[in-house]
Amino acid sequence: MTDQDKGSFTHFDESGNAHMVDVGSKKETERVAYAAGNIRMSKKAYELVRSGSVKKGDVLGISRVAGVMAAKKVDELIPLAHPLMISKANIDFEFNDDDYSINIYATVGITGKTGVEMEALTAVSISALTIYDMCKAVDKSMVISEIRLLKKTGGKSGTYIRD
Amino acid sequence: MTDQDKGSFTHFDESGNAHMVDVGSKKETERVAYAAGNIRMSKKAYELVRSGSVKKGDVLGISRVAGVMAAKKVDELIPLAHPLMISKANIDFEFNDDDYSINIYATVGITGKTGVEMEALTAVSISALTIYDMCKAVDKSMVISEIRLLKKTGGKSGTYIRD
Amino acid sequence: MTDQDKGSFTHFDESGNAHMVDVGSKKETERVAYAAGNIRMSKKAYELVRSGSVKKGDVLGISRVAGVMAAKKVDELIPLAHPLMISKANIDFEFNDDDYSINIYATVGITGKTGVEMEALTAVSISALTIYDMCKAVDKSMVISEIRLLKKTGGKSGTYIRD
Amino acid sequence: MTDQDKGSFTHFDESGNAHMVDVGSKKETERVAYAAGNIRMSKKAYELVRSGSVKKGDVLGISRVAGVMAAKKVDELIPLAHPLMISKANIDFEFNDDDYSINIYATVGITGKTGVEMEALTAVSISALTIYDMCKAVDKSMVISEIRLLKKTGGKSGTYIRD
Amino acid sequence: MTDQDKGSFTHFDESGNAHMVDVGSKKETERVAYAAGNIRMSKKAYELVRSGSVKKGDVLGISRVAGVMAAKKVDELIPLAHPLMISKANIDFEFNDDDYSINIYATVGITGKTGVEMEALTAVSISALTIYDMCKAVDKSMVISEIRLLKKTGGKSGTYIRD
Amino acid sequence: MTDQDKGSFTHFDESGNAHMVDVGSKKETERVAYAAGNIRMSKKAYELVRSGSVKKGDVLGISRVAGVMAAKKVDELIPLAHPLMISKANIDFEFNDDDYSINIYATVGITGKTGVEMEALTAVSISALTIYDMCKAVDKSMVISEIRLLKKTGGKSGTYIRD
Repeated sequence: MTDQDKGSFTHFDESGNAHMVDVGSKKETERVAYAAGNIRMSKKAYELVRSGSVKKGDVLGISRVAGVMAAKKVDELIPLAHPLMISKANIDFEFNDDDYSINIYATVGITGKTGVEMEALTAVSISALTIYDMCKAVDKSMVISEIRLLKKTGGKSGTYIRD
Repeated sequence: MTDQDKGSFTHFDESGNAHMVDVGSKKETERVAYAAGNIRMSKKAYELVRSGSVKKGDVLGISRVAGVMAAKKVDELIPLAHPLMISKANIDFEFNDDDYSINIYATVGITGKTGVEMEALTAVSISALTIYDMCKAVDKSMVISEIRLLKKTGGKSGTYIRD
Repeated sequence: MTDQDKGSFTHFDESGNAHMVDVGSKKETERVAYAAGNIRMSKKAYELVRSGSVKKGDVLGISRVAGVMAAKKVDELIPLAHPLMISKANIDFEFNDDDYSINIYATVGITGKTGVEMEALTAVSISALTIYDMCKAVDKSMVISEIRLLKKTGGKSGTYIRD
Repeated sequence: MTDQDKGSFTHFDESGNAHMVDVGSKKETERVAYAAGNIRMSKKAYELVRSGSVKKGDVLGISRVAGVMAAKKVDELIPLAHPLMISKANIDFEFNDDDYSINIYATVGITGKTGVEMEALTAVSISALTIYDMCKAVDKSMVISEIRLLKKTGGKSGTYIRD
Repeated sequence: MTDQDKGSFTHFDESGNAHMVDVGSKKETERVAYAAGNIRMSKKAYELVRSGSVKKGDVLGISRVAGVMAAKKVDELIPLAHPLMISKANIDFEFNDDDYSINIYATVGITGKTGVEMEALTAVSISALTIYDMCKAVDKSMVISEIRLLKKTGGKSGTYIRD
Repeated sequence: MTDQDKGSFTHFDESGNAHMVDVGSKKETERVAYAAGNIRMSKKAYELVRSGSVKKGDVLGISRVAGVMAAKKVDELIPLAHPLMISKANIDFEFNDDDYSINIYATVGITGKTGVEMEALTAVSISALTIYDMCKAVDKSMVISEIRLLKKTGGKSGTYIRD
């Protein structure tokens, strides 16, 4: 049986009280998590971001930095997350000209006792929110969607790949 | 012309360099922002959260605290956001039994020179990620979606209501 | 009726859900809070601190800095506390030769919409913990006690003085 | 001779200047620290907390989260503490109906080069301060006391148990 | 007599103990501080930065973001600094082809009770350190120099302009 | 070929996008970095610091604490820096009576996969800025200079000693 099959939440003890799960006896293995998300905006905002990222007003450059920095702050943001020393973090973007949206991808890696799924998902979320912040003077109706784990490797529960 | 009509990004100067926008001459007004989002999960995870929130293993109670705390950390997360002294923050949840999803709502208020849209959107995002973290042992395929601004009041650009 | 007489907790709404209390409509007044605490230790540790603070190995100097810095971090530590811009912070110490203990006093001030009781109490607590940290190689049995609010002034509920 | 017997403070060098002690050559061992504290309040506040924690208005649930999160922030709060990757953290409470007080217990664990006494003691302290914050509208005269280390295991100095 | 003429340090009380200076009674005025610094590097590193900042590998774009973010963290870094809500922050760069160095300029503004000199100086310092970090694989011998206040306006002590 | 000889920046991928370099496969070795810097001030400020550091008003004691604490915050300040668990940190000072300046030295050590050059350089910088903060009421024209790496040991690129 893998972690994924567990029938109950690990963040609560038998009395239902929240705690930080004990990972002391878990093995240090190489772990990588891949997450993704999407931000959809008006044609005008989209074109400003798209042109900006190659000429001037580098929205995606700043969003990328924000995403990497957020991956380092997960233990401050997510109450029961473990402090981790991540060993790599990447953010990538993909333009969708048909619906004026941008895909955001994060890859985070570690050699450690617990996975970095939350780090990758948080990196995507803060990266998207940073795009929102920088474009909100032009478009307040942007929508951030499809934040999800694509894949994770390493750890006792092994590889997970989203269908 | 309101802020919303601006044809270009305010977070860049005329050379295209990022900066923290000068709000020194803006008036202090009462401002409130309302944001929302959604997290969709497996039937099993959904039922555990739903029962937990009334009996034991209070996923939403912890998610609510995480959302409020995140609203206070926006200036550390979003590179060009101003430090702000928010004067209120609320998180609410709504269960959707038909598709096993939970709606997350955040309300953030301030009397200040700049709005709290990012604070409300970030509160929703971190609240959703905290639910993900606490349920991921049961379901890794959860999806966070529809993070958006519902409404904001106050400030020079006045009221915005999402259609 | 003053704040002190309130019959229920303000940090929960009528459904019992935690939130950050709305202080938006409260007036900015000058507010000061005074808190105190005590740390008791072995004779040996006490004498090392006492001599150190006048010659070398300045335990109390470092404890004082830690207390002031902690007063600035309350909104990160106490989940529903408001972010505040404190305008002054002091830590003082008093040696009790008869029981080998040290009294710690903190004074924190602000012109703001909400009080600084938590800032003063947190400053005392972290100041005491810093003394513990620096002396624990000599004495692990130290006890921190009597952390309490001595007095607060300003705000709608007026002056509070501990009996 | 164990650490506990040391005749002088380790946080100062031979000139009396503060520094972060070198733990580079210490062995990674499994270490656990147990700390406790107490907060005493009025009958009214006590009954509100006691009823709240089983029905609604969950003071202790939020205090527990604050304690766990504080254990992750020790290196920011205690000037000469080492950054640590704690692997578990628990907070427990015990009601004392006779004197209207609540006992707070923290357990923190790590596999590392240095102990987690400060993490457990800080978790107790911030947990207690969070209770104070949430109850202060009802009672400002609460007192936090008896913050102390109960036990620690692991490391060169071995097991310490408070008498 | 202005602040600049004071014969003693304001960060210590009459007993020589450090404290956070009381600014409660100071007036809120508009204040701006301008600071500068310089980082000198090898010809090779300089040319990589210079070309990178217009084509790809945007060292200065990331350094600029780091500088702005650091201006928001001064109260966490400088022990006795007040928490502040800065209202603007800019970083600019200037290439010196003759000695392969880059000038860094920071402008920080606030409407507040205390000045933002430390915010501007810290922004310059962290901006320079970020350049160092990104170029250290190519050149470890870079030198950061001439970090200084160029000018400040506002506040009781009035305008200061460096000779 | 050592790290120092690399012809390009490691903080960018082949498309020129910033990322946190993957150190997952690097070996854990003992690493130490030594950095230095200098702050020059007026005769009057210098004499106040010099006398203060032995009698009362301990500017350098507080600067030392600020430097050590800053070494622990590098991953929050430098966007693409890895989170690290440093195992030691020291700050030392040297008075230069001839030009009224103070030399600042930082030593930081770790057993880890990546070096601590940035930690030592940041410790020196924040230590210098803290001296500036505490003396600025007496002298606003202080200059911080010569922040540089003196030496580093450990890691694949081996020992670096500044000429």
